Amino acid sequence: MEHVVLKEFENMIGSRLLTEIDDRTSYGYDGSFGQYIPDCVAQVMSTEEVQRIMEIADQHEIPVCARGASTSLSGGPLPVHGGIVLDFSQWDTKLEIYPDDLIMKVSPGVRTGDIHELAEAHNLMYPPDPSSSSICTIGGNLAENAGGPRGVKYGVTKDFVIGLEIVTADGKVLRTGGSTVKNVTGYDLTKLIVGSEGTLAVITEATLRLIPKPSDTRTAMIIFEDLYTAGKSISKILTSGVRPSKMEILDHNAINKVEDYAGLDLPREAAAIILVEVDGDPDVLVKELRIVEKALSEIGVENVQVASDKEEEARLWQVRKLVSPAVVSSGYTKISEDATVPLSRIPDMFRKIDEIKKKYDLNIVVFGHAGDGNLHPTINTNMRDPEEVERVEQAVEEIFNYAIELGGTLSGEHGIGTMKKAFLVREMGEEGVEFQKAIKRALDPKNILNPGKIFPEKGEKRLVLRND
Amino acid sequence: MEHVVLKEFENMIGSRLLTEIDDRTSYGYDGSFGQYIPDCVAQVMSTEEVQRIMEIADQHEIPVCARGASTSLSGGPLPVHGGIVLDFSQWDTKLEIYPDDLIMKVSPGVRTGDIHELAEAHNLMYPPDPSSSSICTIGGNLAENAGGPRGVKYGVTKDFVIGLEIVTADGKVLRTGGSTVKNVTGYDLTKLIVGSEGTLAVITEATLRLIPKPSDTRTAMIIFEDLYTAGKSISKILTSGVRPSKMEILDHNAINKVEDYAGLDLPREAAAIILVEVDGDPDVLVKELRIVEKALSEIGVENVQVASDKEEEARLWQVRKLVSPAVVSSGYTKISEDATVPLSRIPDMFRKIDEIKKKYDLNIVVFGHAGDGNLHPTINTNMRDPEEVERVEQAVEEIFNYAIELGGTLSGEHGIGTMKKAFLVREMGEEGVEFQKAIKRALDPKNILNPGKIFPEKGEKRLVLRND
Repeated sequence: MEHVVLKEFENMIGSRLLTEIDDRTSYGYDGSFGQYIPDCVAQVMSTEEVQRIMEIADQHEIPVCARGASTSLSGGPLPVHGGIVLDFSQWDTKLEIYPDDLIMKVSPGVRTGDIHELAEAHNLMYPPDPSSSSICTIGGNLAENAGGPRGVKYGVTKDFVIGLEIVTADGKVLRTGGSTVKNVTGYDLTKLIVGSEGTLAVITEATLRLIPKPSDTRTAMIIFEDLYTAGKSISKILTSGVRPSKMEILDHNAINKVEDYAGLDLPREAAAIILVEVDGDPDVLVKELRIVEKALSEIGVENVQVASDKEEEARLWQVRKLVSPAVVSSGYTKISEDATVPLSRIPDMFRKIDEIKKKYDLNIVVFGHAGDGNLHPTINTNMRDPEEVERVEQAVEEIFNYAIELGGTLSGEHGIGTMKKAFLVREMGEEGVEFQKAIKRALDPKNILNPGKIFPEKGEKRLVLRND
Repeated sequence: MEHVVLKEFENMIGSRLLTEIDDRTSYGYDGSFGQYIPDCVAQVMSTEEVQRIMEIADQHEIPVCARGASTSLSGGPLPVHGGIVLDFSQWDTKLEIYPDDLIMKVSPGVRTGDIHELAEAHNLMYPPDPSSSSICTIGGNLAENAGGPRGVKYGVTKDFVIGLEIVTADGKVLRTGGSTVKNVTGYDLTKLIVGSEGTLAVITEATLRLIPKPSDTRTAMIIFEDLYTAGKSISKILTSGVRPSKMEILDHNAINKVEDYAGLDLPREAAAIILVEVDGDPDVLVKELRIVEKALSEIGVENVQVASDKEEEARLWQVRKLVSPAVVSSGYTKISEDATVPLSRIPDMFRKIDEIKKKYDLNIVVFGHAGDGNLHPTINTNMRDPEEVERVEQAVEEIFNYAIELGGTLSGEHGIGTMKKAFLVREMGEEGVEFQKAIKRALDPKNILNPGKIFPEKGEKRLVLRND
């Protein structure tokens, strides 16, 4: 980056412009792979700053990558072509609730957990709850359209965003949507920008919608002797008439990783467990779990353990939260996949992953949001062993191909980022990718907004597991 | 249209190409205003036919307007620049349910009511329920992102579409989304195309998601002595902790129109009534309505009448369904508006509409989806009286301006179509409209997909109340 440009940035934001190599290095990674050093980092604190930076970036064709807490598992915020990183993590100044309108307005650096807390203090709920909610920012959730366990009943981030303030590639400030849940005036830019991974515009404010907080929850753990039956149970529960608020699955490996890590008295022998939460009026919850039990007994599933109190319920959800840390703690590198399939095909997907695990002799843990068909086959691997990495590449490719074959998708909630872009054409076809690129070119003709994401670059055919 | 082109169409679909003036005339209107005669009409029955027609249209730059049952209130399907109308109403051949995946696949001509019936036969529910559901087609619902009373709890059409098959402006067939609820692979074309009023692509198939059908419903009618308190009650109910599945309002005029029309023993003196439905487990519904009653009594509202049986409940919802027919039957032309405001501003909007009614001496009936802030101020007017039409124009303009001032929108569920395009800039600003137009130009560079919709044409400043 030219010195004169850096000077211009520095004049604007002073010491919030970081140019030292140590600082820049620490902005070069996220929760996925690869390390890319940006030319500079701007810790932005206002729409005006973002606007002015975009004007300069437009003029000099400088890549701009927005970044929150960088918990991304798909490489979303990585500055793969250098340029400037906009660090939004400091800009947490706006967190306003309007309880009578059931909405909240937030700046991009607000922590998702703080949004939950404020909503709950007003007896309201912001349902999206990615596992990283205690550290991630809403800006990152918006960029990647983050999900979480409550997706099965309530939907994902996009379903709770009704308005945005954005800065365009050429530095214009626009508002999309508004403060109403219903809005059909023009194209739905809000839902186009959310989940576009920072490639179409930079988000500087969001209006979120809230719902009344359910008065209670109740959780059951269902224990399975075989994985196929566990898969079949998912559709069975979802067609029983009950709408679970969470429905998560852990396979045998995931159970044992958690048990090794935290010793929570889990059934180590089980092929899988499913955790089901129902929410709403306390009088109905017991009845709803009985309906679930009855539906399951029709397919021979009898081992259903309902948490007897809040403490036990909290312990069960702790199990789910601990899967990722447990896998990480086992030492090797964790590669989290995100393949998502139609509900009735979950048993097939489980069977396939089991085959792949054996075929490539890999350590694969499967868990995920069962009620959405959103599985996280997670591979523990030694990145220093090129032969093993090769097997990982092939295994992941087979998982992707099979998910697509089943009518599913590469990514349910993590995004494409750098990690999966080589596979985009396989899901959408050349013409589908071209249709998407036409939108990208129209809104960012100089390709300065988070370049190198979503769309494969020439010749890219593989997962980005190494930065070389 | 050149004879050779007509011949080409005819060779493809034979007698399903309509070219006689009588036929063409009957395809020139919808539920709004204006009459525009297309050059021809193709009753399409397959993706291949649509694809071939789009190729020819692209080659000859012929405007293409997709059309379902044409119940649109905003002019969406009107062929304002002539060209070819694609009549999808005959193509109702695909109506497939996959209960274990909680999805349905439908061709564009399927009647929305048939989707409801099939879902319910499997103890499932497709929540979007526009008032015209007994006659409208899913294709039209998709184009305009139709809403309906259940929006308050479940959302609108877009929230239940997870995949599309589309034909692009240059005749390519693409699939967007898929068969999974979660999908963050690339840009969300599904949610961009739904609600884009046929201006970005032609939809040839949709995959809809379904949810378990709630086991029961219960309805209360709340009677108000003043409209302002009725408005205030809306936020009060929605923050009581209960999530109503429907919440509709009728003002004094609406009540009396229905009473004149159908004699349903409504409280003619009331300033307004609100109908509230809750759904779910029967044991909880009574309790929930008591919570609503308690919340309302805190602001002095005491007249809450809970329907004692299914018959009475059906009668109450009949009241809501009859507002439009009652207004139509009163003889003059009905102009239905669709302004939507944040929940806490509904009382202000009611007050403003009352002022406008007096100021312009107009017959305005107000009803609508109270729980979404989505009001339908509906004007009865004599279109042959130019002086009155002038007053209507001014009144509607004031309603729009005030909705925008309150943080609301021009249209909550009817769409922009021809009717409201002159006001688009007011809501989005010039730069916001330009951003949207960039998408339109990128995906339809020759402007052949439903031209003359959404975006104002040069010099357009008014409602399209007359085609002159």
